[in-house]
Amino acid sequence: MPVLFITGNKRKFEEVKAVLPEIEQLDVDLPEIQEIDAKAVIRAKLLEALKHRQGDVIVEDSSLCFDCLNGLPGPLIKWFLKALGNDGLYLLAVKCGVFGAEARTTFGLARGPERIYYFEASCRGEIVRPRGDKDFGWGPIFQPAGSALTYGEMDREAKHRFSMRGQAARKLRDFLKENIR
Amino acid sequence: MPVLFITGNKRKFEEVKAVLPEIEQLDVDLPEIQEIDAKAVIRAKLLEALKHRQGDVIVEDSSLCFDCLNGLPGPLIKWFLKALGNDGLYLLAVKCGVFGAEARTTFGLARGPERIYYFEASCRGEIVRPRGDKDFGWGPIFQPAGSALTYGEMDREAKHRFSMRGQAARKLRDFLKENIR
Repeated sequence: MPVLFITGNKRKFEEVKAVLPEIEQLDVDLPEIQEIDAKAVIRAKLLEALKHRQGDVIVEDSSLCFDCLNGLPGPLIKWFLKALGNDGLYLLAVKCGVFGAEARTTFGLARGPERIYYFEASCRGEIVRPRGDKDFGWGPIFQPAGSALTYGEMDREAKHRFSMRGQAARKLRDFLKENIR
Repeated sequence: MPVLFITGNKRKFEEVKAVLPEIEQLDVDLPEIQEIDAKAVIRAKLLEALKHRQGDVIVEDSSLCFDCLNGLPGPLIKWFLKALGNDGLYLLAVKCGVFGAEARTTFGLARGPERIYYFEASCRGEIVRPRGDKDFGWGPIFQPAGSALTYGEMDREAKHRFSMRGQAARKLRDFLKENIR
Protein backbone atom coordinates (compact mmCIF):
# COMPACT_ATOMS: atom_id res chain seq x y z
CA MET A 1 0.00 0.00 0.00
CA PRO A 2 1.43 3.43 -0.91
CA VAL A 3 2.36 6.09 1.61
CA LEU A 4 0.02 9.01 0.93
CA PHE A 5 1.29 12.55 1.38
CA ILE A 6 -1.68 14.88 1.70
CA THR A 7 -0.85 18.24 0.18
CA GLY A 8 -2.16 20.57 -2.45
CA ASN A 9 1.33 22.00 -3.02
CA LYS A 10 3.00 20.33 -5.99
CA ARG A 11 6.42 21.82 -5.29
CA LYS A 12 6.34 20.81 -1.65
CA PHE A 13 5.38 17.30 -2.77
CA GLU A 14 8.33 17.10 -5.18
CA GLU A 15 10.73 18.31 -2.51
CA VAL A 16 9.64 15.55 -0.15
CA LYS A 17 9.47 12.89 -2.87
CA ALA A 18 13.17 13.49 -3.58
CA VAL A 19 13.83 12.05 -0.09
CA LEU A 20 10.93 9.61 0.04
CA PRO A 21 10.44 8.17 -3.46
CA GLU A 22 7.68 5.83 -2.25
CA ILE A 23 5.18 8.57 -1.46
CA GLU A 24 2.18 9.47 -3.58
CA GLN A 25 0.43 12.79 -3.57
CA LEU A 26 -3.16 12.99 -2.38
CA ASP A 27 -4.48 16.40 -3.26
CA VAL A 28 -7.50 16.78 -0.98
CA ASP A 29 -8.43 19.88 0.91
CA LEU A 30 -8.62 19.12 4.63
CA PRO A 31 -9.62 21.95 6.96
CA GLU A 32 -6.89 23.22 9.26
CA ILE A 33 -7.78 24.01 12.84
CA GLN A 34 -6.77 27.36 14.30
CA GLU A 35 -3.81 26.56 16.51
CA ILE A 36 -0.24 27.71 16.85
CA ASP A 37 0.93 24.25 17.89
CA ALA A 38 1.78 22.64 14.56
CA LYS A 39 1.30 19.15 16.00
CA ALA A 40 -2.30 19.93 16.94
CA VAL A 41 -2.99 21.17 13.41
CA ILE A 42 -1.40 18.07 11.90
CA ARG A 43 -3.11 15.65 14.26
CA ALA A 44 -6.56 17.03 13.44
CA LYS A 45 -5.83 16.74 9.72
CA LEU A 46 -4.57 13.18 10.04
CA LEU A 47 -7.61 12.06 12.05
CA GLU A 48 -9.83 13.53 9.35
CA ALA A 49 -7.80 11.81 6.61
CA LEU A 50 -8.03 8.45 8.37
CA LYS A 51 -11.81 8.57 8.05
CA HIS A 52 -11.37 8.18 4.30
CA ARG A 53 -8.08 6.34 3.84
CA GLN A 54 -6.29 3.32 5.18
CA GLY A 55 -2.58 2.78 5.31
CA ASP A 56 0.19 5.27 6.05
CA VAL A 57 -0.85 8.89 5.70
CA ILE A 58 1.49 11.88 5.95
CA VAL A 59 0.74 15.53 6.59
CA GLU A 60 3.28 18.34 6.77
CA ASP A 61 3.34 21.79 8.32
CA SER A 62 5.97 24.43 7.73
CA SER A 63 6.08 27.41 10.04
CA LEU A 64 7.97 30.66 9.90
CA CYS A 65 8.51 32.12 13.36
CA PHE A 66 9.59 35.77 13.61
CA ASP A 67 11.66 36.68 16.66
CA CYS A 68 10.06 40.14 16.61
CA LEU A 69 6.62 38.56 16.95
CA ASN A 70 7.65 36.21 19.72
CA GLY A 71 7.44 33.19 17.43
CA LEU A 72 4.41 34.17 15.38
CA PRO A 73 3.00 33.84 12.79
CA GLY A 74 4.31 30.24 13.01
CA PRO A 75 1.82 27.89 11.32
CA LEU A 76 -0.34 30.95 10.56
CA ILE A 77 2.30 32.21 8.11
CA LYS A 78 0.18 31.48 5.05
CA TRP A 79 -2.37 34.13 6.04
CA PHE A 80 0.38 36.68 6.58
CA LEU A 81 1.97 35.87 3.27
CA LYS A 82 -1.43 36.33 1.62
CA ALA A 83 -2.11 39.64 3.38
CA LEU A 84 1.34 41.23 3.24
CA GLY A 85 3.33 39.39 0.59
CA ASN A 86 7.06 38.76 0.96
CA ASP A 87 7.78 42.48 0.63
CA GLY A 88 5.36 43.31 3.44
CA LEU A 89 6.77 40.56 5.69
CA TYR A 90 10.27 41.87 5.14
CA LEU A 91 9.12 45.44 5.86
CA LEU A 92 7.58 44.24 9.12
CA ALA A 93 10.95 42.90 10.26
CA VAL A 94 12.59 46.15 9.15
CA LYS A 95 10.15 48.21 11.19
CA CYS A 96 10.70 46.02 14.22
CA GLY A 97 14.45 46.18 13.69
CA VAL A 98 14.68 42.47 14.46
CA PHE A 99 15.51 40.06 11.64
CA GLY A 100 16.04 36.74 13.37
CA ALA A 101 13.62 33.97 12.52
CA GLU A 102 13.20 30.23 12.69
CA ALA A 103 11.82 28.00 9.98
CA ARG A 104 10.31 24.79 11.23
CA THR A 105 8.87 21.74 9.50
CA THR A 106 6.84 19.03 11.18
CA PHE A 107 5.71 15.83 9.50
CA GLY A 108 2.93 13.75 11.00
CA LEU A 109 2.66 10.09 10.05
CA ALA A 110 -0.54 8.21 10.91
CA ARG A 111 -0.81 4.45 10.93
CA GLY A 112 -4.19 4.65 12.67
CA PRO A 113 -5.89 7.04 15.13
CA GLU A 114 -3.78 5.76 18.02
CA ARG A 115 -0.52 5.61 16.10
CA ILE A 116 0.52 9.11 15.11
CA TYR A 117 4.23 9.99 14.98
CA TYR A 118 5.92 13.36 14.51
CA PHE A 119 9.24 14.27 12.87
CA GLU A 120 10.55 17.78 13.29
CA ALA A 121 13.44 19.92 12.21
CA SER A 122 14.14 23.60 12.40
CA CYS A 123 16.55 26.05 10.92
CA ARG A 124 17.62 29.45 12.27
CA GLY A 125 18.04 32.28 9.83
CA GLU A 126 17.27 35.86 8.94
CA ILE A 127 14.43 37.67 7.24
CA VAL A 128 15.93 39.50 4.26
CA ARG A 129 14.70 41.57 1.33
CA PRO A 130 13.12 39.06 -1.13
CA ARG A 131 15.69 37.43 -3.45
CA GLY A 132 15.38 34.57 -5.92
CA ASP A 133 12.53 32.74 -7.58
CA LYS A 134 13.60 29.10 -7.25
CA ASP A 135 11.43 28.44 -4.21
CA PHE A 136 7.76 28.91 -3.32
CA GLY A 137 5.96 30.72 -0.50
CA TRP A 138 8.25 32.69 1.83
CA GLY A 139 11.45 31.08 0.51
CA PRO A 140 12.73 34.36 -1.03
CA ILE A 141 12.85 36.17 2.36
CA PHE A 142 14.45 33.41 4.45
CA GLN A 143 18.23 33.14 4.52
CA PRO A 144 19.42 30.23 6.69
CA ALA A 145 22.28 30.88 9.10
CA GLY A 146 25.57 29.93 7.43
CA SER A 147 24.27 30.51 3.91
CA ALA A 148 24.76 33.50 1.64
CA LEU A 149 21.65 32.53 -0.32
CA THR A 150 17.96 32.59 0.47
CA TYR A 151 15.85 29.48 -0.16
CA GLY A 152 14.62 31.38 -3.20
CA GLU A 153 18.16 31.49 -4.63
CA MET A 154 19.25 27.91 -3.89
CA ASP A 155 19.07 25.14 -6.39
CA ARG A 156 17.05 22.19 -5.10
CA GLU A 157 20.07 20.17 -4.01
CA ALA A 158 21.46 22.99 -1.86
CA LYS A 159 18.04 23.57 -0.38
CA HIS A 160 17.77 19.92 0.61
CA ARG A 161 21.02 20.20 2.50
CA PHE A 162 20.04 23.38 4.28
CA SER A 163 16.34 23.14 4.73
CA MET A 164 14.40 22.07 7.75
CA ARG A 165 12.02 20.26 5.39
CA GLY A 166 14.86 18.13 4.05
CA GLN A 167 16.06 17.28 7.56
CA ALA A 168 12.61 16.39 8.83
CA ALA A 169 11.93 14.29 5.71
CA ARG A 170 15.13 12.31 6.35
CA LYS A 171 13.99 11.57 9.91
CA LEU A 172 10.68 10.35 8.56
CA ARG A 173 12.46 8.26 5.91
CA ASP A 174 14.64 6.58 8.55
CA PHE A 175 11.61 5.80 10.69
CA LEU A 176 9.76 4.26 7.76
CA LYS A 177 12.81 2.11 6.94
CA GLU A 178 13.17 0.91 10.51
CA ASN A 179 9.49 0.39 11.13
CA ILE A 180 8.04 -1.41 8.16
CA ARG A 181 4.30 -1.49 8.43
CA MET B 1 -36.41 26.04 23.59
CA PRO B 2 -33.58 28.32 24.76
CA VAL B 3 -31.21 30.11 22.40
CA LEU B 4 -27.77 28.68 23.13
CA PHE B 5 -24.73 30.95 22.90
CA ILE B 6 -21.62 28.82 22.55
CA THR B 7 -18.70 30.49 24.28
CA GLY B 8 -16.18 29.78 26.97
CA ASN B 9 -15.86 33.49 27.77
CA LYS B 10 -18.07 34.42 30.73
CA ARG B 11 -17.60 38.18 30.25
CA LYS B 12 -18.44 38.02 26.57
CA PHE B 13 -21.53 36.02 27.46
CA GLU B 14 -22.68 38.63 29.99
CA GLU B 15 -22.13 41.43 27.50
CA VAL B 16 -24.37 39.71 24.95
CA LYS B 17 -26.96 38.62 27.54
CA ALA B 18 -27.50 42.29 28.43
CA VAL B 19 -28.93 42.70 24.92
CA LEU B 20 -30.43 39.22 24.53
CA PRO B 21 -31.76 38.12 27.93
CA GLU B 22 -33.17 34.90 26.49
CA ILE B 23 -29.77 33.35 25.71
CA GLU B 24 -28.11 30.62 27.74
CA GLN B 25 -24.40 29.92 27.81
CA LEU B 26 -23.13 26.63 26.45
CA ASP B 27 -19.51 26.30 27.45
CA VAL B 28 -18.21 23.68 25.05
CA ASP B 29 -14.92 23.79 23.27
CA LEU B 30 -15.45 23.59 19.51
CA PRO B 31 -12.38 23.59 17.29
CA GLU B 32 -11.89 26.70 15.18
CA ILE B 33 -10.76 26.28 11.62
CA GLN B 34 -7.82 28.28 10.36
CA GLU B 35 -9.36 31.01 8.25
CA ILE B 36 -9.29 34.77 8.13
CA ASP B 37 -12.89 34.94 6.97
CA ALA B 38 -14.80 35.11 10.26
CA LYS B 39 -17.96 33.72 8.64
CA ALA B 40 -16.13 30.57 7.56
CA VAL B 41 -14.85 30.05 11.13
CA ILE B 42 -18.33 30.60 12.56
CA ARG B 43 -20.05 28.39 10.00
CA ALA B 44 -17.75 25.44 10.72
CA LYS B 45 -18.38 25.84 14.46
CA LEU B 46 -22.14 26.02 14.03
CA LEU B 47 -22.24 22.92 11.82
CA GLU B 48 -20.27 21.07 14.49
CA ALA B 49 -22.61 22.34 17.23
CA LEU B 50 -25.70 21.26 15.30
CA LYS B 51 -24.49 17.67 15.44
CA HIS B 52 -25.12 17.75 19.18
CA ARG B 53 -27.87 20.33 19.69
CA GLN B 54 -31.23 21.23 18.30
CA GLY B 55 -32.83 24.66 18.31
CA ASP B 56 -31.24 28.05 17.85
CA VAL B 57 -27.47 28.09 18.31
CA ILE B 58 -25.29 31.22 18.31
CA VAL B 59 -21.55 31.60 17.82
CA GLU B 60 -19.62 34.86 17.89
CA ASP B 61 -16.28 36.00 16.52
CA SER B 62 -14.56 39.26 17.34
CA SER B 63 -11.66 40.35 15.18
CA LEU B 64 -9.11 43.10 15.56
CA CYS B 65 -7.75 44.23 12.21
CA PHE B 66 -4.57 46.33 12.19
CA ASP B 67 -4.19 48.74 9.28
CA CYS B 68 -0.42 48.22 9.44
CA LEU B 69 -0.91 44.48 8.88
CA ASN B 70 -3.36 44.93 6.04
CA GLY B 71 -6.27 43.75 8.16
CA LEU B 72 -4.52 41.00 10.11
CA PRO B 73 -4.51 39.44 12.64
CA GLY B 74 -8.33 39.66 12.29
CA PRO B 75 -9.91 36.50 13.74
CA LEU B 76 -6.38 35.29 14.56
CA ILE B 77 -6.03 38.05 17.17
CA LYS B 78 -6.22 35.64 20.11
CA TRP B 79 -2.92 34.02 19.17
CA PHE B 80 -1.26 37.41 18.87
CA LEU B 81 -2.63 38.53 22.20
CA LYS B 82 -1.26 35.32 23.71
CA ALA B 83 2.17 35.71 22.11
CA LEU B 84 2.69 39.46 22.48
CA GLY B 85 0.22 40.69 25.11
CA ASN B 86 -1.43 44.09 24.85
CA ASP B 87 1.91 45.84 25.42
CA GLY B 88 3.49 43.93 22.54
CA LEU B 89 0.55 44.59 20.22
CA TYR B 90 0.76 48.29 20.98
CA LEU B 91 4.51 48.25 20.39
CA LEU B 92 3.96 46.61 17.01
CA ALA B 93 1.73 49.52 15.96
CA VAL B 94 4.32 51.98 17.30
CA LYS B 95 7.06 50.31 15.27
CA CYS B 96 4.93 50.39 12.15
CA GLY B 97 3.96 54.00 12.85
CA VAL B 98 0.37 53.18 11.91
CA PHE B 99 -2.26 53.12 14.65
CA GLY B 100 -5.54 52.76 12.76
CA ALA B 101 -7.53 49.59 13.36
CA GLU B 102 -10.96 48.13 12.99
CA ALA B 103 -12.78 46.01 15.52
CA ARG B 104 -15.37 43.69 14.06
CA THR B 105 -17.91 41.33 15.59
CA THR B 106 -19.85 38.71 13.69
CA PHE B 107 -22.63 36.61 15.15
CA GLY B 108 -23.76 33.44 13.43
CA LEU B 109 -27.20 32.05 14.20
CA ALA B 110 -28.02 28.50 13.10
CA ARG B 111 -31.53 27.13 12.89
CA GLY B 112 -30.32 24.09 10.97
CA PRO B 113 -27.45 23.30 8.58
CA GLU B 114 -29.20 25.11 5.71
CA ARG B 115 -30.35 28.06 7.79
CA ILE B 116 -27.35 30.02 8.99
CA TYR B 117 -27.61 33.81 9.34
CA TYR B 118 -24.89 36.36 10.05
CA PHE B 119 -25.05 39.71 11.87
CA GLU B 120 -22.05 42.00 11.69
CA ALA B 121 -20.91 45.33 12.99
CA SER B 122 -17.58 47.08 13.01
CA CYS B 123 -15.98 50.01 14.70
CA ARG B 124 -13.02 52.10 13.57
CA GLY B 125 -10.52 53.19 16.16
CA GLU B 126 -6.90 53.45 17.20
CA ILE B 127 -4.41 51.17 18.85
CA VAL B 128 -3.20 52.96 21.99
CA ARG B 129 -0.96 52.22 24.96
CA PRO B 130 -2.98 49.85 27.22
CA ARG B 131 -5.38 51.71 29.55
CA GLY B 132 -8.11 50.44 31.87
CA ASP B 133 -9.07 47.09 33.32
CA LYS B 134 -12.86 47.07 32.85
CA ASP B 135 -12.73 44.97 29.70
CA PHE B 136 -11.18 41.68 28.67
CA GLY B 137 -8.86 40.64 25.85
CA TRP B 138 -7.54 43.51 23.75
CA GLY B 139 -10.07 46.05 25.12
CA PRO B 140 -7.35 48.13 26.85
CA ILE B 141 -5.54 48.94 23.57
CA PHE B 142 -8.58 49.78 21.43
CA GLN B 143 -9.93 53.33 21.51
CA PRO B 144 -12.98 53.74 19.25
CA ALA B 145 -13.13 56.80 17.00
CA GLY B 146 -15.04 59.58 18.76
CA SER B 147 -14.23 58.31 22.24
CA ALA B 148 -11.59 59.52 24.67
CA LEU B 149 -11.69 56.16 26.44
CA THR B 150 -10.52 52.68 25.50
CA TYR B 151 -12.90 49.74 25.90
CA GLY B 152 -10.84 48.96 28.96
CA GLU B 153 -11.82 52.28 30.53
CA MET B 154 -15.52 52.31 29.66
CA ASP B 155 -18.22 51.19 32.02
CA ARG B 156 -20.39 48.48 30.51
CA GLU B 157 -23.18 50.86 29.45
CA ALA B 158 -20.82 53.11 27.50
CA LYS B 159 -19.20 50.09 25.91
CA HIS B 160 -22.58 48.80 24.74
CA ARG B 161 -23.21 52.10 23.02
CA PHE B 162 -19.82 52.19 21.34
CA SER B 163 -18.95 48.63 20.73
CA MET B 164 -19.30 46.63 17.57
CA ARG B 165 -20.40 43.69 19.73
CA GLY B 166 -23.32 45.70 21.12
CA GLN B 167 -24.35 46.79 17.62
CA ALA B 168 -24.15 43.31 16.16
CA ALA B 169 -26.05 41.87 19.14
CA ARG B 170 -28.86 44.38 18.55
CA LYS B 171 -29.12 43.29 14.91
CA LEU B 172 -29.36 39.69 16.05
CA ARG B 173 -31.97 40.63 18.68
CA ASP B 174 -34.13 42.38 16.07
CA PHE B 175 -33.92 39.39 13.76
CA LEU B 176 -34.95 36.99 16.52
CA LYS B 177 -37.94 39.22 17.38
CA GLU B 178 -39.06 39.44 13.77
CA ASN B 179 -38.46 35.80 12.95
CA ILE B 180 -39.86 33.72 15.75
CA ARG B 181 -38.85 30.14 15.28
